[in-house]
Amino acid sequence: MRAVVMRSSQLVIDTVPDPIPGPGEVLVKTLACGICGSDLHALKHADKMVEAARETGAPFALDVKRDVVMGHEFCAEVIDYGPETIGPLKSGTRVVSMPIVFSNGMFDTVGYSNTAPGGYGELMRLSAAMILPVPNGLSTDLAALTEPMAVGLHAVNKARLESNDATLVIGCGPVGLAVIAALKLKGAAPIVAADYSPMRRRLAEGMGADIVIDPDEKPTMAAFVEAANLRPAVIFECVGVPGMLQTIMREAPLGSRIVVAGVCMEADTIKPAHGINKELSLQFVLGYTPDEFAGTLQHIAEGRIDVASLVTGRVELDKVPAAFDELAQPEKHAKILVEPWR
Amino acid sequence: MRAVVMRSSQLVIDTVPDPIPGPGEVLVKTLACGICGSDLHALKHADKMVEAARETGAPFALDVKRDVVMGHEFCAEVIDYGPETIGPLKSGTRVVSMPIVFSNGMFDTVGYSNTAPGGYGELMRLSAAMILPVPNGLSTDLAALTEPMAVGLHAVNKARLESNDATLVIGCGPVGLAVIAALKLKGAAPIVAADYSPMRRRLAEGMGADIVIDPDEKPTMAAFVEAANLRPAVIFECVGVPGMLQTIMREAPLGSRIVVAGVCMEADTIKPAHGINKELSLQFVLGYTPDEFAGTLQHIAEGRIDVASLVTGRVELDKVPAAFDELAQPEKHAKILVEPWR
Repeated sequence: MRAVVMRSSQLVIDTVPDPIPGPGEVLVKTLACGICGSDLHALKHADKMVEAARETGAPFALDVKRDVVMGHEFCAEVIDYGPETIGPLKSGTRVVSMPIVFSNGMFDTVGYSNTAPGGYGELMRLSAAMILPVPNGLSTDLAALTEPMAVGLHAVNKARLESNDATLVIGCGPVGLAVIAALKLKGAAPIVAADYSPMRRRLAEGMGADIVIDPDEKPTMAAFVEAANLRPAVIFECVGVPGMLQTIMREAPLGSRIVVAGVCMEADTIKPAHGINKELSLQFVLGYTPDEFAGTLQHIAEGRIDVASLVTGRVELDKVPAAFDELAQPEKHAKILVEPWR
Repeated sequence: MRAVVMRSSQLVIDTVPDPIPGPGEVLVKTLACGICGSDLHALKHADKMVEAARETGAPFALDVKRDVVMGHEFCAEVIDYGPETIGPLKSGTRVVSMPIVFSNGMFDTVGYSNTAPGGYGELMRLSAAMILPVPNGLSTDLAALTEPMAVGLHAVNKARLESNDATLVIGCGPVGLAVIAALKLKGAAPIVAADYSPMRRRLAEGMGADIVIDPDEKPTMAAFVEAANLRPAVIFECVGVPGMLQTIMREAPLGSRIVVAGVCMEADTIKPAHGINKELSLQFVLGYTPDEFAGTLQHIAEGRIDVASLVTGRVELDKVPAAFDELAQPEKHAKILVEPWR
């Protein structure tokens, strides 16, 4: 099949072997696959991701010296099942899935694996037990946003919001926007969001932010404290660069709960005394549960999470390397979908 | 009055002006005052404590170039009230108090202040509204332990324990021992405690630890994981040196909740990726609430927290500098009480 391959920290368009579904697996044709910020990061720092996983004993086996077909935010079409597998969904059914495939008693992370190619290729193998049918009437594009939006729902669930909490979302890239959508879904108010990019601030308003802040115009925390009006503060860190955590810890109001949804792969410096003096808490979050994933698909299908504004581009395989470059400019795009069949 | 004075990062025995109680205040005679690890730290790094407080906007005004009489873990005797103050407790009543005194609409931290001397002096001024009578029959020594034991109760309350949680206390100095006592009070099981010092491990067992670990003999986290037997992990960091947080984050089981009760005043390095991969949470804690303080006094008075084993020495004012040196050796002491009247 044709695919965009990560090879020696470069993206290369190439022909690679078709994935072959094993027992319990399903072969699918990729219809659309979002480009995730983690993929941009992995292209440069895959070794750091693998190292951090190994240090924490997480089962994330990836040989960065071998080919990887990335892409884990996909909508796909059922083509065929593996041997001895009775699939619940007919060929031609559009599906989404958590990007995990079980094979031989192990699990593989689709899109961050040498053996389970992701949605930047024409075909994928998935676990038959994991696929969810896209409800009638929901477009392929919007279904493909299930994965990134589930990340936001999970982060908000881990925050254990209470009715009186004031929320601040720092960084309105795809993770921050997903958090805003989930906060709106949960009825949080006010939702304050900060980003330097005018386009991202507009998207944040579209997803449900009550107040958007341009940190160049007004210090983020001062604007938030004013809006919070003494309510307990829950702050979502959705940037993920070194130094951001300490900036938030230094500036956050007393007793703030900080949810760390931004992925900083580097070592980072904090001052524990700031955490202690203000009794802050930090909740690091990752991924989502199967329930949250399925729930997100339903929320999107029934219009409770409206993601239409987030798709700002569609590209064929040949244009994926250029799309990676464009996504480094926050002013141009939110989510670009790869359409390998084009 | 006679007092141990912190002057130019040295402890000096000197005569200083008697504190004069203002309106709403009470003059007390210090009966016993525990030496706290924070005092050892402040003697060397008071400037860092003040800097961290200033950076977080905490109202902790201390001029380290002026005299400070430390000591905030005290039991004292009512002598007299300030002008226009009707005191609830008669002269001669033994009392404890949170180490905070309100005057002129400000509050002063007793023992970390240039104007509110602490229990390393013969006399203190306290707020009449804050003093609590020591119940009949409770010794002065044990009453003086209310403050450090309240720190442990608060840390455990902030952990929001659930019935199935397994708990680990890293470091069995006074803070760790207070945490163990509070865990026992709450019915937590198992309580696992780790310290290099045999004496501290014995004290930990006395306070209620079910399993004590010598990290020289067996890796702490491996022993804890075995004892936890898949139960959710709640880990209390009670050491407070740089690097400890990252060691815990790297080794802690998936989903661990880490309560940071150790006070590390230096900048510290963590790897957020470890927190993310395992969805860890960090809850920084400080002090206690008035309810927790009063509750701790009651728990001690009624025998639910048994602190008798913690008092390992009593010294007069002249011997305080030597006691500070001895406390740097964890094998010799848990809590030394200063008795300025001797």
